[in-house]
Amino acid sequence: LRIKVINPNTTATMTETIAAAARAVASPGTEIVAATSASGPVSIEGHYDEAVAAIGLIEQIRAGEAAGGDARPDAYVIACFGDPGLLAARELATGPVIGIAEAAMRAATFVATGFSVVTTLARTRVIAEHLVVAYGMERICRRVRAIDVAVLALDDPAGNARARLFEECRRALAEDGSGAIVLGCAGMAELAASLARDLNVPVIDGVAAAVKMAEALVGMGLKTSKHGDLAAPLRKTYVGSLAHLAPE
Amino acid sequence: LRIKVINPNTTATMTETIAAAARAVASPGTEIVAATSASGPVSIEGHYDEAVAAIGLIEQIRAGEAAGGDARPDAYVIACFGDPGLLAARELATGPVIGIAEAAMRAATFVATGFSVVTTLARTRVIAEHLVVAYGMERICRRVRAIDVAVLALDDPAGNARARLFEECRRALAEDGSGAIVLGCAGMAELAASLARDLNVPVIDGVAAAVKMAEALVGMGLKTSKHGDLAAPLRKTYVGSLAHLAPE
Amino acid sequence: LRIKVINPNTTATMTETIAAAARAVASPGTEIVAATSASGPVSIEGHYDEAVAAIGLIEQIRAGEAAGGDARPDAYVIACFGDPGLLAARELATGPVIGIAEAAMRAATFVATGFSVVTTLARTRVIAEHLVVAYGMERICRRVRAIDVAVLALDDPAGNARARLFEECRRALAEDGSGAIVLGCAGMAELAASLARDLNVPVIDGVAAAVKMAEALVGMGLKTSKHGDLAAPLRKTYVGSLAHLAPE
Amino acid sequence: LRIKVINPNTTATMTETIAAAARAVASPGTEIVAATSASGPVSIEGHYDEAVAAIGLIEQIRAGEAAGGDARPDAYVIACFGDPGLLAARELATGPVIGIAEAAMRAATFVATGFSVVTTLARTRVIAEHLVVAYGMERICRRVRAIDVAVLALDDPAGNARARLFEECRRALAEDGSGAIVLGCAGMAELAASLARDLNVPVIDGVAAAVKMAEALVGMGLKTSKHGDLAAPLRKTYVGSLAHLAPE
Amino acid sequence: LRIKVINPNTTATMTETIAAAARAVASPGTEIVAATSASGPVSIEGHYDEAVAAIGLIEQIRAGEAAGGDARPDAYVIACFGDPGLLAARELATGPVIGIAEAAMRAATFVATGFSVVTTLARTRVIAEHLVVAYGMERICRRVRAIDVAVLALDDPAGNARARLFEECRRALAEDGSGAIVLGCAGMAELAASLARDLNVPVIDGVAAAVKMAEALVGMGLKTSKHGDLAAPLRKTYVGSLAHLAPE
Amino acid sequence: LRIKVINPNTTATMTETIAAAARAVASPGTEIVAATSASGPVSIEGHYDEAVAAIGLIEQIRAGEAAGGDARPDAYVIACFGDPGLLAARELATGPVIGIAEAAMRAATFVATGFSVVTTLARTRVIAEHLVVAYGMERICRRVRAIDVAVLALDDPAGNARARLFEECRRALAEDGSGAIVLGCAGMAELAASLARDLNVPVIDGVAAAVKMAEALVGMGLKTSKHGDLAAPLRKTYVGSLAHLAPE
Repeated sequence: LRIKVINPNTTATMTETIAAAARAVASPGTEIVAATSASGPVSIEGHYDEAVAAIGLIEQIRAGEAAGGDARPDAYVIACFGDPGLLAARELATGPVIGIAEAAMRAATFVATGFSVVTTLARTRVIAEHLVVAYGMERICRRVRAIDVAVLALDDPAGNARARLFEECRRALAEDGSGAIVLGCAGMAELAASLARDLNVPVIDGVAAAVKMAEALVGMGLKTSKHGDLAAPLRKTYVGSLAHLAPE
Repeated sequence: LRIKVINPNTTATMTETIAAAARAVASPGTEIVAATSASGPVSIEGHYDEAVAAIGLIEQIRAGEAAGGDARPDAYVIACFGDPGLLAARELATGPVIGIAEAAMRAATFVATGFSVVTTLARTRVIAEHLVVAYGMERICRRVRAIDVAVLALDDPAGNARARLFEECRRALAEDGSGAIVLGCAGMAELAASLARDLNVPVIDGVAAAVKMAEALVGMGLKTSKHGDLAAPLRKTYVGSLAHLAPE
Repeated sequence: LRIKVINPNTTATMTETIAAAARAVASPGTEIVAATSASGPVSIEGHYDEAVAAIGLIEQIRAGEAAGGDARPDAYVIACFGDPGLLAARELATGPVIGIAEAAMRAATFVATGFSVVTTLARTRVIAEHLVVAYGMERICRRVRAIDVAVLALDDPAGNARARLFEECRRALAEDGSGAIVLGCAGMAELAASLARDLNVPVIDGVAAAVKMAEALVGMGLKTSKHGDLAAPLRKTYVGSLAHLAPE
Repeated sequence: LRIKVINPNTTATMTETIAAAARAVASPGTEIVAATSASGPVSIEGHYDEAVAAIGLIEQIRAGEAAGGDARPDAYVIACFGDPGLLAARELATGPVIGIAEAAMRAATFVATGFSVVTTLARTRVIAEHLVVAYGMERICRRVRAIDVAVLALDDPAGNARARLFEECRRALAEDGSGAIVLGCAGMAELAASLARDLNVPVIDGVAAAVKMAEALVGMGLKTSKHGDLAAPLRKTYVGSLAHLAPE
Repeated sequence: LRIKVINPNTTATMTETIAAAARAVASPGTEIVAATSASGPVSIEGHYDEAVAAIGLIEQIRAGEAAGGDARPDAYVIACFGDPGLLAARELATGPVIGIAEAAMRAATFVATGFSVVTTLARTRVIAEHLVVAYGMERICRRVRAIDVAVLALDDPAGNARARLFEECRRALAEDGSGAIVLGCAGMAELAASLARDLNVPVIDGVAAAVKMAEALVGMGLKTSKHGDLAAPLRKTYVGSLAHLAPE
Repeated sequence: LRIKVINPNTTATMTETIAAAARAVASPGTEIVAATSASGPVSIEGHYDEAVAAIGLIEQIRAGEAAGGDARPDAYVIACFGDPGLLAARELATGPVIGIAEAAMRAATFVATGFSVVTTLARTRVIAEHLVVAYGMERICRRVRAIDVAVLALDDPAGNARARLFEECRRALAEDGSGAIVLGCAGMAELAASLARDLNVPVIDGVAAAVKMAEALVGMGLKTSKHGDLAAPLRKTYVGSLAHLAPE
């Protein structure tokens, strides 16, 4: 079982963090293929970053599908909490495509009746709030919080990100009526375990959640429905610098 | 990894169907412990059946938790599409407790933008519709349909249940704008694969979905949150014929 | 006109409080028959307590329906703010069955455009919040608050429950934009009148509300619909320690 | 206990129907004071009719409140299914003010998990649908249907209204998944009992429902909240032909 | 292109403020005809004021429609943030009728993903909140705030309304996660530009928004749909002091 | 006043249709600058087409903003009914950015209480349905319908698109309870007027609606809020083939 975990930003060190988180939870028979987007923003912190990052993500899905036979991934994970390009990717892919925001939120609903999301920059809260609605979580997600630390500063020791994250999680548990925390950035993956220990509640990293959901779906024999809007893109001409993205 | 799959009705042959469906998808390292409720209705086809069945379910969860050390299940599956006693069970259990309706609906959202539920008796549609709201699926579940076959008649060859189920699924795909089917009864588990083949869309059996979700959550190290309403039941006296259910 | 008011917990002194509240508002021609659950928890403060308490409630409804001719209650009241076993009871009963949470919230909507619920333990807020959704009150119920006093401590003078309740109501009126208070526990029934006087807003006790709603429905000649999911439970075998609950 | 039942249209024969329906369900100690609006449309079949009819309704509420001492009504009923002027009336009145649409829908929720509204002209369906949202009934009201008979033609034998109403109710029960019918016009009040008998489900007339709800609220000692938006209108000058409506 | 801007309260100085705001944004070819309601309250600060004010508004719409040929307005603006009589006016009018609350909220959605409303008296917040639901703005309008200044005191220098408004807007931007402000009263129109400058976010006055929306709709050739509930009122008799309002 | 109307697909003949529709409604002082995306799909008929088309759209917005002084557009219109790249474009632009789906739906709410969308291929209905939720139109948009004609076949005489569109609109008016039609594709723009004439209801073309909304917003002096998530994209490195899209 091969899962291609795609970091839709172009920062390879962040892909390493993501790959480590993925491998830490992968089942024995699961191969994690981590990929970094080849084109686009070094971090995704807004609607614009996200729209551009969808292209790099799409290229990785296309490359995955183009692989012959056994080399084709059984499932894909989009390792950015905005789930960029998710439905486009599902049109392309045969197997399941899982966004980490979606996976984390759905996982949270199994272990708590309410959760809070804690994300990086305040401006990205709206993106998470839109996903909360898209995924039907309005009544379960009690609040989206931000620590106002940039994505690439998460592992800068000077930024004190871990302490700020812990403090915001603590506030969420005290004020929001939540029983679990969803981490709002793939770059926070390595902090989930220690936060869970210190906070004594489920702290959910979307990368881990998405890998396990992908294994679960593949294990059930499920593929993306090709009946309706997720059917393969219609064959048509694409022109200009994006001509290579024309559906085949 | 041990998953206790509980059939909350008292019909052992149905437990066998459920256990087979669970084992068919379980990972190599997963042990499926199937249990039949010791007390309550032989099938669950209404609010009343469900309320009573919650007790048999609770007894099985209590027995699971009472098991010492390694014998304690890592997770539980409630194998009835009404998810009876789900939140009560979560208070009792340390590990995750997964209802099959919840698991099936959440699995469906990963592979289609809309799904239809097809259940047994028309009177149980309201139960499924209430769960659709509870799980935030109002915009993704496009319709709950029924074939008006009793639960225990599902495998009665004379009842022609498979043909009626296929026909209702076919209608759902043609009329509802759905890309996937969620089977609305644990007793339909063994039909999922053949229906999926014939309909050429994802057909999701909740038993399989719940087992895989349970594996996923345990694999992520998640347990039920004990912060808030899912904390262990408060110790107090229970009296009368249910005195033995007092929290410990 | 006979209304059976059922206390689904097993504490007889609380039944007395409930019966007094019921009789205080009953019309001249109304007979209040108060009953205490014979089996289950001494107080209901969580999902688990509630699931078990549904059985004791069901037994009381069955006993009521089994009464011949004139002895059969015209309506039932479930006197616990979680409305345990409500839909199951409706399947069993010919006449209306009213939950006190439901009755209190619906009564509130006639006298205010927004209300706050004030309940006992913080962990029970989620139960009330789920009912808010189930009853379509999301836009009218502005907040569910708790005073963190256990149900059975409500009338313990040392606990100062009345003062804490008053203070929380006062805060609700100042902060929530609410015009009325719904008391979130049957055990608060005797405080409603004095709180209303001191706060100068409608303070609604669900026991009183449910009795009056029951009288209203019976007075209109309404019975529980037996078309659809509230039809009498299907006859079937129940086994084990709950065999006596099989539908007749 | 005095309930003033106001027909907001100006057709006295319809007031008689309404008064008869009100008296048929009123408790022994309840005095029904029926009033016909003195100014406005002879029937209410649209947003415009309704906006104008609110004035006649308001005049009747003002007259009621102006009555000294014992002559002041304890509660008011607005006997038109659009509930015209409801919140304005609540600002004016000390006691509860009940709209028949609101009362009928809330009564229905106690005896069925889903209901259909059957109203007169198709163009008035939108009014009922807006009330469905305002009252939080989106998930319980399954459909608003119309028989396309004008309000004043309801009791014209030539119009065959009763037969068309019966047929539409029958369709609602077969197609909508509803267990009860809410009649969408005060002029249908006298048909409720016979329809209930023939259809064998609860058929709810709002006039009866509102009278019983009014008795219930008064019996609980509830008055309209004067904390917030339903406080008495601010004293201020009104000019022109409506100067006499200035708050006192 | 002629737009009749109707002040539904009877204070002529406020009409002047409104007319000035309307003319300040009107296109060269647009004639603004400002009208003051001839009958009703001097300010609209509650449900009751609003119900009565709907009549004065209706009279102005009728007068507009009665004008022959070129004198008939191409569109109408209802210049009170409660949008009184909106749907009634739409039945009467051939051209579009725009409420300022509706126009302001819809305009806000084009320039921000979230906005806050800041209105006058606290008691009118509920009116705005009801409109938020009616217009589908629940997820975009993040909060309705009030400065507790009466409508007619807005331009009383002693009342310091501008400073309080500025302070409340500032708080909204800091606390609500909003990117724009919607002013909740026509009387605030002249403050919009200076507030926008000082706050450095879009501050939307409904009068300006409604005039521009009216121009836009007329420019597209759109008129009010006469298919369904907005068709001209049915011809019928109106009696009493409102007989003159009978549809023609 | 300069509005840049961007066709996010790469078919120049469709841009001509769009430009003609835009110019047909533009005010005298408005300059319409029509642009065709330079890269991407020749038509947009799915999530994948849309994700890729967002890039061509973004390039056009960037080019617009890069224009010095007077040459910079005052507003932008995204002329595809999926509103691709809308929020990304708003981060980039100083002036308002209007999607045609959003503009059409909001325009419809001013002239009808319910509308139906009629779009091209069935598979694109889900895209429109997602926008319906995003724009708060769940209760106003009564149904999304499709004629199953490809975008580029709309003006193929052999395809009979106009007749199929007319027929589907007619059905929408008869069955959906809608009073207006929203055309679900920019390529239908030239048919709006004749359909409106034949159907005798408002038929709304999003291109016209967006141009008029853009004029309205600019006329009010509104620009995109730069407080919060629509602030200019953070400066950061973009790499690979999309490096040129890095925010400046």
